[in-house]
Amino acid sequence: MKFEVTILGSSSATPIFNRNPSAQALNINERLYLIDCGEGTQQQMLKFDVKSRRIDHIFISHLHGDHYLGLVGLLSSMQLNGRDKPLSIFCPANLKEIIDVQMQFSETKLEYPVTYKFTNSETAEIILENADVTVESIPLDHGMACTGFLFREKKRMRKLIKEKIEQLQIPVEYYSPLKRGADYTAPDGQVFKNDELTTDSSDPKTYVYCSDTLPNEKYFEQISNATLLYHEATFLHNMLERAIETHHTTALQAAEVAVKTNAEQLLIGHFSARYKTLNELLDEARTVFPDTELAVEGRVFSIGEA
Amino acid sequence: MKFEVTILGSSSATPIFNRNPSAQALNINERLYLIDCGEGTQQQMLKFDVKSRRIDHIFISHLHGDHYLGLVGLLSSMQLNGRDKPLSIFCPANLKEIIDVQMQFSETKLEYPVTYKFTNSETAEIILENADVTVESIPLDHGMACTGFLFREKKRMRKLIKEKIEQLQIPVEYYSPLKRGADYTAPDGQVFKNDELTTDSSDPKTYVYCSDTLPNEKYFEQISNATLLYHEATFLHNMLERAIETHHTTALQAAEVAVKTNAEQLLIGHFSARYKTLNELLDEARTVFPDTELAVEGRVFSIGEA
Repeated sequence: MKFEVTILGSSSATPIFNRNPSAQALNINERLYLIDCGEGTQQQMLKFDVKSRRIDHIFISHLHGDHYLGLVGLLSSMQLNGRDKPLSIFCPANLKEIIDVQMQFSETKLEYPVTYKFTNSETAEIILENADVTVESIPLDHGMACTGFLFREKKRMRKLIKEKIEQLQIPVEYYSPLKRGADYTAPDGQVFKNDELTTDSSDPKTYVYCSDTLPNEKYFEQISNATLLYHEATFLHNMLERAIETHHTTALQAAEVAVKTNAEQLLIGHFSARYKTLNELLDEARTVFPDTELAVEGRVFSIGEA
Repeated sequence: MKFEVTILGSSSATPIFNRNPSAQALNINERLYLIDCGEGTQQQMLKFDVKSRRIDHIFISHLHGDHYLGLVGLLSSMQLNGRDKPLSIFCPANLKEIIDVQMQFSETKLEYPVTYKFTNSETAEIILENADVTVESIPLDHGMACTGFLFREKKRMRKLIKEKIEQLQIPVEYYSPLKRGADYTAPDGQVFKNDELTTDSSDPKTYVYCSDTLPNEKYFEQISNATLLYHEATFLHNMLERAIETHHTTALQAAEVAVKTNAEQLLIGHFSARYKTLNELLDEARTVFPDTELAVEGRVFSIGEA
């Protein structure tokens, strides 16, 4: 099952040439989940071949413009492109008013159904569950209502032991029940326990998105053991005071979060426009957590295949 | 006096790779006037070296997203960049609510003064006048409140006839009064009429911005004799029905407007995403009005120096 994230934007609020504000497209089993939607996200989607018609779920962390200003344009374009299937938006409640007032004044009535699930910035909740994934909101610490998102793959089906299946000449119609854990009764009545014929699949993988926030223990337990942790790292640690003042994290701190929460791999992003190049941020994080990568525009990360 | 326009965006509502929605930066005597501000305008400004700190006036034609969705981000960035000087916004009244609700929910208080002048889509009005320019709103025909903008240079001062000035050894302190039309009295009492010593400067130039609209005689008289006419041309003329249905203009019609209103030069823009290349639109317009150019990203047009 595909589980990979394409980075569409890596900058924080002040614009900088060749970096875009926050947006990521998460592909889970060929369905796209858009996470944040800063200004210009549509252009980034065109650039990196992320098809808006494959997006059915949009997650907005909070209402600073660099995380949502591309949304009204995207919703309008979906309309112009003839969308009729439903769209779900997971966001702070006030975003609906921001969208509604603009649809009203532009005399636009969206012809496809849009449903909202408002996030709760105080308590972690399961906000979505389908055949592929469970999504939890993560209350963050950004001085305003702000949540991250945890995407947890559904437990995968068991794997058939090919040699055993062939040896016993088990018919194809038994494969699905076996993968789901059933035992097998042969034509002669002999029963084979499931664990003789299948092996457990790997543990479900998780993708954790934490932007924007001060590092805060309140969310550490929830995000622990992430297969891939995206954590904002707006500043170098020599700007710690500024990071605290603006409720952000330094690259060093992001790496410490990865260590403390036992992440397998770390992505850092949401870089301040003061950094024209990003090596220093990466180097700083790697001093603490070596398996760190930069979440920059156009990079694609397969979750659990680092 | 500099009078030139830089095109920041040429597309209509549906996004297309490498074209951006409407935005233009008009430089009049080194002050910038931003006309429309589609999504991504800030990135385009960075790309083409248009400095936001030099913008004191922003003009928004109407409230379709491809004409204003970049504005909230721009206003926020001006704040982040420490702006303290005033900004004037000329726009439909409802834009203020769109901005206010977003500033409220993002907990942003702009520290610089913003004043609004609401445009009237029924009656042409002078909406700005300063030492360099007079700006009029142009009621258009777009099925919703929508105005274009006419920028008319202030009458320039008269030009000194260098040989005469030297011959009469007129002191420097008389130059300014002469340029403003005063006569000159020589030390011996002889009076020289102003028109012996100066020549009339060229007529004030005008830049006319018409987007979005059906071609409609109601605005033809107001925009007549434009030095440079920008007119939307969303479709080829074989899409006339679609143009009428969506309150837009074809390339052929834009050229006809230029002919009927006696424009010196025509720019066409606001191209539908269905046109991957633009030659056909340009060719169609030039069959009717040869001095037509494409208003595409990054092009700079000096008004009256074609």
